[in-house]
Amino acid sequence: MFDPRAFLREKRDGRTHAAADLREFIDRYTRGEIPDYQVSAWLMAAFHRGLDDAETDALTLGLLHSGRVFDWSALGRPSADKHSTGGVGDKVSLILAPLVAACGVLVPMVSGRGLGHTGGTLDKLESIPGFKTRLDPDAMRTQLDQLGVVMVGQGPDLAPADGKLYALRDVTSTVERDYFIVPSIVSKKIAEGAGAIAYDVKCGNGAFMTTPEAAVSLARRLVRTTERLGARAAARVTDMSQPLGVAAGNALEVVESVEVLRGGGPADVRELSLELSAVMLRLAGAEPTHEAARVRATRALDSGEALERFGRLVEAQGGDRRAAESATLAPAPEKVTLRSPGEGRIGGIDTYALGDVVVSIGGGRRAKEDEIDPRVGLMVRRRIGDEVREGDVLAELHLARRDAATEARAIAAFRITPVEVEVPTLVIERVDSAD
Amino acid sequence: MFDPRAFLREKRDGRTHAAADLREFIDRYTRGEIPDYQVSAWLMAAFHRGLDDAETDALTLGLLHSGRVFDWSALGRPSADKHSTGGVGDKVSLILAPLVAACGVLVPMVSGRGLGHTGGTLDKLESIPGFKTRLDPDAMRTQLDQLGVVMVGQGPDLAPADGKLYALRDVTSTVERDYFIVPSIVSKKIAEGAGAIAYDVKCGNGAFMTTPEAAVSLARRLVRTTERLGARAAARVTDMSQPLGVAAGNALEVVESVEVLRGGGPADVRELSLELSAVMLRLAGAEPTHEAARVRATRALDSGEALERFGRLVEAQGGDRRAAESATLAPAPEKVTLRSPGEGRIGGIDTYALGDVVVSIGGGRRAKEDEIDPRVGLMVRRRIGDEVREGDVLAELHLARRDAATEARAIAAFRITPVEVEVPTLVIERVDSAD
Repeated sequence: MFDPRAFLREKRDGRTHAAADLREFIDRYTRGEIPDYQVSAWLMAAFHRGLDDAETDALTLGLLHSGRVFDWSALGRPSADKHSTGGVGDKVSLILAPLVAACGVLVPMVSGRGLGHTGGTLDKLESIPGFKTRLDPDAMRTQLDQLGVVMVGQGPDLAPADGKLYALRDVTSTVERDYFIVPSIVSKKIAEGAGAIAYDVKCGNGAFMTTPEAAVSLARRLVRTTERLGARAAARVTDMSQPLGVAAGNALEVVESVEVLRGGGPADVRELSLELSAVMLRLAGAEPTHEAARVRATRALDSGEALERFGRLVEAQGGDRRAAESATLAPAPEKVTLRSPGEGRIGGIDTYALGDVVVSIGGGRRAKEDEIDPRVGLMVRRRIGDEVREGDVLAELHLARRDAATEARAIAAFRITPVEVEVPTLVIERVDSAD
Repeated sequence: MFDPRAFLREKRDGRTHAAADLREFIDRYTRGEIPDYQVSAWLMAAFHRGLDDAETDALTLGLLHSGRVFDWSALGRPSADKHSTGGVGDKVSLILAPLVAACGVLVPMVSGRGLGHTGGTLDKLESIPGFKTRLDPDAMRTQLDQLGVVMVGQGPDLAPADGKLYALRDVTSTVERDYFIVPSIVSKKIAEGAGAIAYDVKCGNGAFMTTPEAAVSLARRLVRTTERLGARAAARVTDMSQPLGVAAGNALEVVESVEVLRGGGPADVRELSLELSAVMLRLAGAEPTHEAARVRATRALDSGEALERFGRLVEAQGGDRRAAESATLAPAPEKVTLRSPGEGRIGGIDTYALGDVVVSIGGGRRAKEDEIDPRVGLMVRRRIGDEVREGDVLAELHLARRDAATEARAIAAFRITPVEVEVPTLVIERVDSAD
C-alpha cells in the first residue's frame, strides 16, 4: 500500500525515491487520489533536497503518461521538433518548422501560448486570419503525412498532469528548479511524438535563465532526460540579452518570419533558424553531420522551398496565405518612433522591460484569460554595440492608442554608454551530447 | 496586499518572515482565505529552513487568537497549569491539579485525549462514573472561583487553527520540529488563561523526545516562547525510559492517583507530582522559592487537603466521588500475571511497546474515533535495575479477554540482563529560566 506520508518523509529527509514510488505518486495525483496539499509539500521538499536523474526520468514519465502519447512511426519518416525556453522576438519556430519539413523530416509541433514577457508561437500564428491551431489527431496525422508539418496548440489530453502540477508549482513558489522544469518540457515534447528534439535555451536579461552556467546546466539536463526517455536531443544556449531580430509582437513577427523565409530579414533570426534547423536535421538522421545539415537547411531556405512549405501549411490549417505573406499583415492604428535621448553606443538593452512593454500594450498576457491584440508590438532598430546620436531612431512602437508612459519605458530600456561595448555572441554554447 | 507566493518564496529561500506577515498568513488560513496546499508548502519550507524565536512567537499568537482566549484575572488569584508532552503511566495531572488548587492557586486545566501509545487526562477522568469533561465558560468560571480548579477538555473554540494546522502537518510529514510543536502547545495553554505554566518534557523510549539534548532544547523553547507571550514558565525534563508509577490504563491510573493523594502510591509518581506542583506554586508566586513551594506542596498532600480537593472536584463535575476514591474503580474481567522468563536484572523496558500494548487491549486509541475501555491496563511490577528470578511477576495485564500474543509482547518489553544496570534519574534537567 502506497503511503504518501512515508513518501514525503523520504524526500524531506534527503533520501532518493525509488522510480516506481515516484511514478506511483504522480499517477495517483493524476487520478485525483492524492490531494494538492501533499503534492505541494512534496514539491517544497524536493525544491530543497533535489531530484537525481532517475527521479527526474520517473517524474517525466509520470507526466508523459498522464495523457495521450502520439506515435508517428507508422508514417515511415523521421520526426523532429524544437523547444525554446522563451524569449522576446523569438519567431524561429515559424521559419524552422516548414524549413525542416521541406527537407523531408516530419515536424509535429505542439506549441504554447505566451504568458508573461515572452510571446508564444500559437499567438503569432493566430494573427494570420483564419489560421486554426486546433486539429484533431486524425487531421494531424493526415496533414503530417501529406505536408510533413503541423503547428498546433496543446490539447487538454497532452500531459494533463503537467498543467495541473505547473499550476500548483506556480502558487506554491516551487517553479525554479531544473528537475521540475525539465520534466514539464520533455514530457510534452515526447508526448507529441517527436523522435528528435532541439532545445534552444535562452540566456540573458530577457530569459528565465540569466547566467550561462544556469542555462548550460538546464540544457544538459534537457538533453540527458530526453535521451534517457528514448528520443534524440541536442541543445543550443543562445543569447537573450537583446530581442531576437527586430520585431516583437505577433503580426509583426509573422511578417519578419516571412522576410527570413524569402531570404532576407535580420541576420540573427536567419542564423538561429538555420542553426536549429541543422540540429534537427542531423538529430533526425537526414544528414550525417552538422555541417551537411547546415548546407541542406540553407539550400531549403534560399531556394524558396521553406517559404512554399510555410504557405501550404497556412492554407492547410485554414489560414489566409496571401495575408500571411503580406508585408502589412495587421497594421496597428498608431505608430510612434522612439528616439535616442543621447549620444554613444547601445551598452545594453533591458530585454525583459521591452517584452513587458509589448505585453502592456496588448501584445501578450499577464493572466491566462487576457485577450491579445495581434497588431501591436515593437520594432527594435538598434542592437547592443550600435552607435547612436541624439534623435536617432531606437525603435518604433505599433499600438492601438498612444501612451507617453509606455514610450518612456521603452526608451529607458536602451542603455547608452560612451565606452566600447562587447557585442554578445548569438550561440553561447552547443550541447550535442548528454555528457 | 498580502502575497502568499512571495511569502512562500521568503521562507523557501531561508529568509526570516516579518512577524506581521507570518501573523497575517496564519490569520488568513484560519479564515479559510489561504488554501491548504499553500500552507503545506510553507510548512515544508519552514521544516527545512527553520523559524526563529520571533517567528515562533508570531505563529503562536496566530494560533492563540484563532479562537477564544480565557482571562481569569478578575478572580483575583494567581493561576497555573502544567503540560506534559506525553508518556506511559503519566497520571500526575490528577494529583497536581487539586493539590495546587488546595494551596490557593487557580488551576484552569484544559487537557487532551490520548492518541497513540500515551494516555490522556480526559480519558482517565472519564473512567469515573458521571464525570463531565465539558463545561461552558460560565460554569468554568464559577467552579474555578469556588473550588480553584477545573479539569476539562479542549472545546472547538480554543485555538481552532492549531487543530487545523496539526491535521495538515500530520498528513504532510511536517510534525517533528520544535518551532511547530511549541506554538501548538503554548497557544492552547495561553488560551486557557493560565498565568504560569510548568512543562514536563518526557524523555526516553516511551516519549516523543528520545534524547536528553532534544528534550532540553524543546523545554527551553517552550519556556522562552511562553515567557515572550507574557506568562511565567519553567520546565522539567523527566525520564520516560520506563512507565511512570505502576499503573498504565485509565481506571487503574485513577486508583493509583488516589493512592498518592492518600500519601502512598509509587515513589516516582509522588516525587514528580510534588516537584511539578512546587514549580507551579513558585511560578504563580504562592511561595518565594522552589524549596518553600516543595514544603507547601508536601504539606497539602500529606494533610489530605489535596485528596479532599480532588473529591470535591469530582463531585463538582458530576462524578461519583465514592467510586473515584475506591480501590476497585472499574475492574476488568480478566487479570493475567506476566512472569519473568529468566534471571538477572531488568536492563531496560520498551516503554513504547508497553504503551502500545495498553492501546491494543482497548485502553487507548489508534484513531481519533476509537472507543476506550476504561477497565483495561497494565500494572508494571518491575522497574529498571530490579533483580528478577525466573517465574517472578513482571507485570499484570487487566483485560476484557485474554490474548496470548499480547501477553508475549508485554513480557518481551522487559529486557533481562546479567550485568549491573544504571537506574535512570527521574528529573533529568531543570529549566527555570529561558536562558
